[in-house]
Amino acid sequence: MAAPVALIQGASRGLGLQFCRHILAHRPAALLVATCRDPEAAAGLRGLADGHPPGRLTVLRLDVSREEDVRACADRVTESFGRLDLLVNCAAVLHPSGRGETSLRDVTAQGVLSTLTTNAVGPLLVAKHLAPLLLRGGGAFGRQPAEESQRHSGVIVNISAKVGSIGDNSLGGWYSYRMSKAALNMATRNLSIELSRRRPKVLCVSLHPGTVDTDLSRPYHRNVPTDKLFAAELAVNQMMSIVDALDGERTGKAFNWDGTELPW
Amino acid sequence: MAAPVALIQGASRGLGLQFCRHILAHRPAALLVATCRDPEAAAGLRGLADGHPPGRLTVLRLDVSREEDVRACADRVTESFGRLDLLVNCAAVLHPSGRGETSLRDVTAQGVLSTLTTNAVGPLLVAKHLAPLLLRGGGAFGRQPAEESQRHSGVIVNISAKVGSIGDNSLGGWYSYRMSKAALNMATRNLSIELSRRRPKVLCVSLHPGTVDTDLSRPYHRNVPTDKLFAAELAVNQMMSIVDALDGERTGKAFNWDGTELPW
Repeated sequence: MAAPVALIQGASRGLGLQFCRHILAHRPAALLVATCRDPEAAAGLRGLADGHPPGRLTVLRLDVSREEDVRACADRVTESFGRLDLLVNCAAVLHPSGRGETSLRDVTAQGVLSTLTTNAVGPLLVAKHLAPLLLRGGGAFGRQPAEESQRHSGVIVNISAKVGSIGDNSLGGWYSYRMSKAALNMATRNLSIELSRRRPKVLCVSLHPGTVDTDLSRPYHRNVPTDKLFAAELAVNQMMSIVDALDGERTGKAFNWDGTELPW
Repeated sequence: MAAPVALIQGASRGLGLQFCRHILAHRPAALLVATCRDPEAAAGLRGLADGHPPGRLTVLRLDVSREEDVRACADRVTESFGRLDLLVNCAAVLHPSGRGETSLRDVTAQGVLSTLTTNAVGPLLVAKHLAPLLLRGGGAFGRQPAEESQRHSGVIVNISAKVGSIGDNSLGGWYSYRMSKAALNMATRNLSIELSRRRPKVLCVSLHPGTVDTDLSRPYHRNVPTDKLFAAELAVNQMMSIVDALDGERTGKAFNWDGTELPW
């Protein structure tokens, strides 16, 4: 059987880098592709590559705001592997300024559009260009049902956020980030519908990692009790448990890190 | 008491033009501002202006994709009226190509971003720049509660769409349009939260007009039974009934044309 292939998009640090560590540690047979905007500067990824046999981890340059980059990356994966079992879309920004809007005064067209580009349009483009490879995957991630016709060949995970839940929103603020994650959740839903019609299917879910200590979120954690603050390692372990249990019944939904379903 | 002032954004045709007709006919005391990208080409608006006394209907140029336009428009309304009771964000595109995506193959970065710009970022920018005027409105639209502290000065209506409901989405497709309306719904929710904290408040809702016969939707109506297809006049009558019943209890939600709440 062909080795499973996983691609982590936005892998230079934070959750993306941890997804790489997790798969290298827990999926010894899997080949891994890690993408980021600037591989030269990605010390964490270089360290991982150096610590594993050649070919185990391939690092590719990918800026999701450039569709030609996305296409070139898909071409490289096609040539090297010809298939894909798992895509995790991790890259995200809170806001180009580094701070979420606390009120309308802070909202700018450029800030909202830039955030939408990275957090919602980017993952959708990556899914579009990698879908043909996922449809040829071996289905190594997720839970395969007994019935052959219901099996899946690939899984797409979009890292979303609880603050992207419209129904759960009672605090407001963070206009750009919230809107981008709501749009991403719609993309998840649409992808799951379109790709569930194929045989074998490709599954797609949005996952909320919990309140994780990463560069994106660190400035906002002063008021979060320590026992509510996840290490990226624990968050990724939890999310991979959800992926392991994923099947056609659970596709097209948003899940919290603990496996509970999130409202849209 | 000062005359109510209403602003309809995206008023050159379709629902926006009908909102203008409705307010001119049913709110004889109201002053109306209608915005569109190209007032010279807006024959329907020119006809309306010619049929009413000078000053009743003011037509302003506004392209919501240009923040400097939005700011200039808000300045004009500030100078001329100094307040606003109702803002209706109508302008929307299905997709720059005129056709919604039927599958991932049709998805392009430029198409998604352009649709997000017009349908989600634009309405948010208009709300941002008009919010100070809405906070000084007379509260002529919506239902005022008995308790003084719960009253509102203005109402924002974002014309959304049932296909922008993630939970209601079982067909897929139309990536750009669906994502833009989901993002707009998040903006509605955020606006309602931020502006409900003010005294007097400003209310904000998303409304789904029903399956209306407009230029945007016409190509898709071949399979819709005639009794399900609204004239714009009926749709606007229904939506204005919802606005008339609006209060602080119902702000921050999405309603169908018949007054039922839509899932996010």
